[in-house]
Order: sequence, then C-alpha cells, then structure tokens
Amino acid sequence: MNMMKNVKFLKCIQCGKEYPALPDATTCLCGGILDVVYDYDYIKTKLNKVVLSKRNDQTMWRYRELLPIEEDTSPEGLRVGNSPLYESPRIAEDLGTKQLYVKDDGFNPTSSLKDRASAMAVTKAKEAGYSTIACSSTGNAASSLAGNAAAAGLSTYIFVPARAPKGKIAQLMMFGANLTAVDGSYEETFDLSKKAIDKYGWYNRNAAINPYLSEGKKTVALEICEQLNFEAPDYVAVSVGDGCTIAGVYKGFYDMFSVGLTDKIPRLISVQAEGCCPINTAVTSGQPWTPQQENTFADSIAVGVPRNADKAIKAIIDSNGICVNVSDDEIKEAQKYLAKNSGVFAEPAGATATAGLIKLSLEGKLDKNAVIVSIATGNGLKDIDSAIKTVGEPIHCKNDLKEFEEKFNL
Amino acid sequence: MNMMKNVKFLKCIQCGKEYPALPDATTCLCGGILDVVYDYDYIKTKLNKVVLSKRNDQTMWRYRELLPIEEDTSPEGLRVGNSPLYESPRIAEDLGTKQLYVKDDGFNPTSSLKDRASAMAVTKAKEAGYSTIACSSTGNAASSLAGNAAAAGLSTYIFVPARAPKGKIAQLMMFGANLTAVDGSYEETFDLSKKAIDKYGWYNRNAAINPYLSEGKKTVALEICEQLNFEAPDYVAVSVGDGCTIAGVYKGFYDMFSVGLTDKIPRLISVQAEGCCPINTAVTSGQPWTPQQENTFADSIAVGVPRNADKAIKAIIDSNGICVNVSDDEIKEAQKYLAKNSGVFAEPAGATATAGLIKLSLEGKLDKNAVIVSIATGNGLKDIDSAIKTVGEPIHCKNDLKEFEEKFNL
Repeated sequence: MNMMKNVKFLKCIQCGKEYPALPDATTCLCGGILDVVYDYDYIKTKLNKVVLSKRNDQTMWRYRELLPIEEDTSPEGLRVGNSPLYESPRIAEDLGTKQLYVKDDGFNPTSSLKDRASAMAVTKAKEAGYSTIACSSTGNAASSLAGNAAAAGLSTYIFVPARAPKGKIAQLMMFGANLTAVDGSYEETFDLSKKAIDKYGWYNRNAAINPYLSEGKKTVALEICEQLNFEAPDYVAVSVGDGCTIAGVYKGFYDMFSVGLTDKIPRLISVQAEGCCPINTAVTSGQPWTPQQENTFADSIAVGVPRNADKAIKAIIDSNGICVNVSDDEIKEAQKYLAKNSGVFAEPAGATATAGLIKLSLEGKLDKNAVIVSIATGNGLKDIDSAIKTVGEPIHCKNDLKEFEEKFNL
Repeated sequence: MNMMKNVKFLKCIQCGKEYPALPDATTCLCGGILDVVYDYDYIKTKLNKVVLSKRNDQTMWRYRELLPIEEDTSPEGLRVGNSPLYESPRIAEDLGTKQLYVKDDGFNPTSSLKDRASAMAVTKAKEAGYSTIACSSTGNAASSLAGNAAAAGLSTYIFVPARAPKGKIAQLMMFGANLTAVDGSYEETFDLSKKAIDKYGWYNRNAAINPYLSEGKKTVALEICEQLNFEAPDYVAVSVGDGCTIAGVYKGFYDMFSVGLTDKIPRLISVQAEGCCPINTAVTSGQPWTPQQENTFADSIAVGVPRNADKAIKAIIDSNGICVNVSDDEIKEAQKYLAKNSGVFAEPAGATATAGLIKLSLEGKLDKNAVIVSIATGNGLKDIDSAIKTVGEPIHCKNDLKEFEEKFNL
C-alpha cells in the first residue's frame, strides 16, 4: 500500500514498533508517537544540490524527495514555504555574535509556520480519500488548517481554547471552518477534539497524533540549509509550546545531514515562557516532563501539557541543545526590538526565540563566533490586542503643524 | 545626473512639461503629477522572456529593467513581491466566466500591496542620500513604509487618520515609526504631512507626490503577466481609493505591452465603495472628479479626496475599463466568499475587487469567456475588528461531546 519509495516505515519513538506508512496513520498501539523513517540511500540517488538548483518549485514541496508523499501526488492549495531568511548585521552586533539571521515564517499564506504542517495534512487527507479534517490547536494550526483546507475544497472541524486571539478566530470563521471555542484549557480542547474525531472518523490533524505533520514543519529547516548555501548554521533558536515545531526543525536538519547535503546538525536553542516551560524543565532536570500552568501571554506556546514532549526533548538533547526560559516582559521587549531592527513584526511566540537569544547574550552565554538563525514562527497581526498593549497608544494630533512639532520636540 | 539608461525623463500628465528623473523628484511646477517615461527600445535590448526565465531574483526587482532605479543600485530591506496568483475554478464557475485568478498581494512582508511602493521609496531615498522618510496614509502605505524602512535602517515620520485600524497602528508602533494619529479626515492627515515634509525636508513617500511609487506598485501587473506565461488577462479587477494602485496596475500592463512581452492591455475593472466613489463617478459622468464623503468601513479605500485621481481616471479610460460601486454589505459578503472559496483572507478593501466581480456577474455584465484576475490588495489580519463584526462570534462549548454534537447538529 505504501507508494512512497523514499519512506521505509513509521516507527514508534517509545517502543520501536514499526508500521506501514499509511496516509491516515496515527499513534502506536503503546500510545507512542510515530516517526517517519526514510530510505536516505534511495533519496541520495534522487536529490542533490544540482537537482535543487534547477528546480522551479518555490514552495515547501521542492523538497519532495524528503517528504512523505506518494510520487504521483500533486499537492494543491495555498503556496506554503519559501519564507525569507533575512541577515541582520545590526542584531548580530547587538547580540555580540558573528552572523544572525531571522527566518520570517510568519511570511506564509495564513501567516504562521503551521501552514507547513497544514499543507501536509491536506495533502495526506486527499491521498487517503478523506473530505473532512479536524484538529485542536492554540490557534495557528487551526487557522492554517482552515485556510489550506478551504483552498483545497475540504471541510474542517476545528477546536480552539476560547482564549485564542481574535485574529486567529477571525481567520477561522472567514475560512468557513466548523469552529468550536472550548471554554477550558488547551488540554481540555485537545480532549474534546479527540473524542469527536474518534467518533466521526475525520482525518486527524493533531500534530502529536499525525506522524506526517512534523515532516511538513521540518521544511523550514530544509529551506534554511539551502538559503545558507548548504552550510548549516551553528545554532537555531525556536520557541517551544507543544513540541512539534522544534521536533520538526530537528528532523529537517537531520535529514539534510543524512543525505549529505550539510555537514552538521545545528545546536537547537529551545526557548519557552517562564510561566509555561514543561519541556525545558524536563531537559534541564533530566526528569520526565510534568504538566504546568499556562501562565504566559504568548498564546501559541502556552501549552501546559505538551502533546509532543517526547520528540521535542529528544531533539533538544540529540542536538546538544540549550534551554532558556524568558519572561513575558522579555518577550514584549524582543517583539519591539525585532520589528524595529529587522522589519519583521512577529507575534509574541514568534519573537520568543529572539527573546531567548537576547537573554543568552546578556548572560554572556552566546557564542561570539557563531552563525545563528532565529525562527519567527508567526506574524504579529495574529494578535493585535496584545501588540497594542505592548506598544501603547500613538501620539494624537490635530491638523496643526505647531501641535505636531511640540509633541515630537521638533 | 540621471544614471538610469532605461528612463528618458519625468513628464507631467497635466501640462506635458519634462523633468530629469532625479531620485527625489516630486510634482510639476503646475501641480500636476509626474509620470516616468521609459526608453522601451533600450529596454527591449535587455529584457526578454529568456532573460527572465533564467533570473533567480524572486522579488519585485526581477523586473529592474522596467523600474526607475540606477543600474548600480542594490535594493535592500524586506523581500517584496512575487505574491501568489491562485487559479480558482470554483469561483470562475460561480461567476460564470472561463478563468478566474486571485492575486494575493496581502502575501507581502507587511501584508499589503503597498510594500511594493514602500520598497521603491526606501530604495530611491537611499539613492538620494536621505536618512528619514515621511508619508501620510490610510494605513497600509504607512505600515509598509515603517517596516521596509526599519529593515533598511532608515527612520520615518508617519501620519495616519486616527480611525486607522488597530492592526496597522500596531505595526507602525512596533516598527518604531514616529507616528502621528491625526484627529481628522484623510485629507487633513495628508495636509499636515505635507506641511511637515515641506518644512523638514524628509524624503516624501506620498504616492501622488512621488512619481516613483506607482512604478513600484506596477510590479503586481508585471508579475501577473509572467505568472500567466505572458498572456495578459482580459480583465483585472482592483479596488480604488487614492487612485495610485490602479494607475500603477495600468502602467505595468502598458510596460509589458510596450516592450512586446504581451500582446494586449487588460480592461481594468475599477471597484469603489458606494459610500466613497469619486473616481468612478468622474469616469462614468465624464465630469471632473469632486470630493465625496468617506462613508465605507473599507478603510484603505475610504478616500474622499483622491490624490491621484487624474492618473487613475486616465488608466480606467485608456484601458476601456469598467466602473462598479459596491455596498459595505457586498464587500463583507465578498470577504467571506473569497476566504471560504480560495483560502485568501483579504481585508475589506482587499475583497472589494471580488465584490465588484460578483456584482457584475449578478447583473449579467460579466464576460462569459474571459480570463479575469482579481487583486486582493491586503491581508484580512490588518483589520480584525471589522472581520469579527462580519463573521460573528464562534460557537462556544465545554469539554463535553454531547454539548458539541447538539451545537453542530451531529
């Protein structure tokens, strides 16, 4: 049944049990998350720098040899991926390092990195013959699923915590999702979605259930490698909530290294909010993760019960990663700093990676001779209310030059 | 002084007087707007389909032979342009026409078409040696200038009407602009900016003053031609406020035709809000335009005193264009329709072109055998409050499968 010559099988990251790579695979019987295992020897015969340099496809699908889709699948829908990687000498100088790049992944069709996973979900759902997809999400996965599904003509059932920012709710409603705002935590939201999906048999886009989604997310790392001319950076900073994104980022760099397109895997810098950092706590303590409160305004990473903690923790440890937690005030400062110095207006969780780098720099812990990439995972327009609180009100003025000059001390 | 071999001179569209193409040129002594006149014979020797097909630059600057920048200028800053052109067979079928494309120009760094003009402004300001740029705007031009200037290390003074949506204000403040929210109409906002710019000598990014900005905007049309494999569409629908965008769109198609890359200029469909349609009124009445009230929720096109009416009116007439006015309710319906059927969530003014097409279709006035492009000029996340009003509140539910099923009639 597996038409994917590049994929060997799915393998449980807990117990090691192997499964055929069916398009609607979920978790292992033991409850563990499945990982897609590739045939890198086969992929090496198909993919190299010359092939990539001649390829016109400017979407995430340009790396299709490293993606779990069938050879005759033509992905449709929105144009996902190929987000800009901006070098910022100014930020590098401020941080005291050699080179600093901002990967603006808010520059995607529904304005977040999650479009990469949703495009994958839509493609796999179509391969499997489903017409309805469902998920729970803190917001971005939801709105990206709704948008990508709308473009591809699929219907959606989507569950978000009622606290999700208005921007994400507005997107969901506009895209015509069957939307439920759950009065409760993200965990309760996830739980309700699971019960409904189990009963109605919709295609499951919950990232810690569906093994293909982090394969979509990993394309952000594949792009970074190609954008840096196949020199992997030394460090990649990324904000962490559910754990799926950092796991995907690691997988992308692992793939690139495994097929010989890069010569190292960057050290991951896992940045969480101080008020909600179960994954970093687990890594630094060496203990299993335990649930935490969701005390941060950075809604996209306010995940007290991360659904993909195991893959995330493994990714951080395997990359010899660094954990850093930042306060909400530090995130706000980083959001303003990033926008003003790079022109990238990121949502709070999108600026969290930068906040982590600033903190490491201030503590003297940042490598002075490094190439660092900071991933901005979502656009600041997603959460305008919090942005307005962060920046304050503008200066008001009548059509009067004197009043203007006084207010700006000109 | 003119280092631009592709540009002959600037020419007043009112009195015909010619000026050298200095990077900080403004208007004619007679008050008329200047147009950039190209040497198409020279450009033909440099630009053709083969050259374009080999070019890696995936930004608006890939058309640099048709852009008014010096040959040794290296534009810097955000990655502007190359927005997606989505074909939508579903919408084409609903409208009763052959092919329908949505040009999603909200897919730009600060999420609107205005990034094309702001990238041009930043580039010309740097050519001219300025370090501060100023403009007035209904919002998008302002936020795009602030973002593009931040990326390029320039400072900005920006004037918006106090009614500008919060999303745009948030962007401006985040990007570190010196922002003035003017308590008054767009005309008063423009007037205050003019007085300040005249006094302080900042680089002027007001689109009807600076002749280069519509040259940036025209890249949306250049891209459409290339994305359609150099077959110009039959019609292009675009929302109209200040008039600069539709003038730029026309110029782009005119350029492409003039250098022989396409064989026709599309008919423009100029769509304005019923509550603010001075340009369409002028075209259909054959009379000079007169000021109107700004009675529409589509803030980006709520321009009662259009600053580029002359160029816009000329563009509509020269293209044998069509004028259509739509109500706010029609814009709201189009906004939902476009998002649900294409996955493109546009701001109200961004969905206005689609509203015009729907109206023409309902009135039986839409060509049944046409290739039509509808330009979505800005992302819906720019104005979430109005989006929420349009879509209403989501269904709330506790973590309870029965309650969920009842609310969705499952």
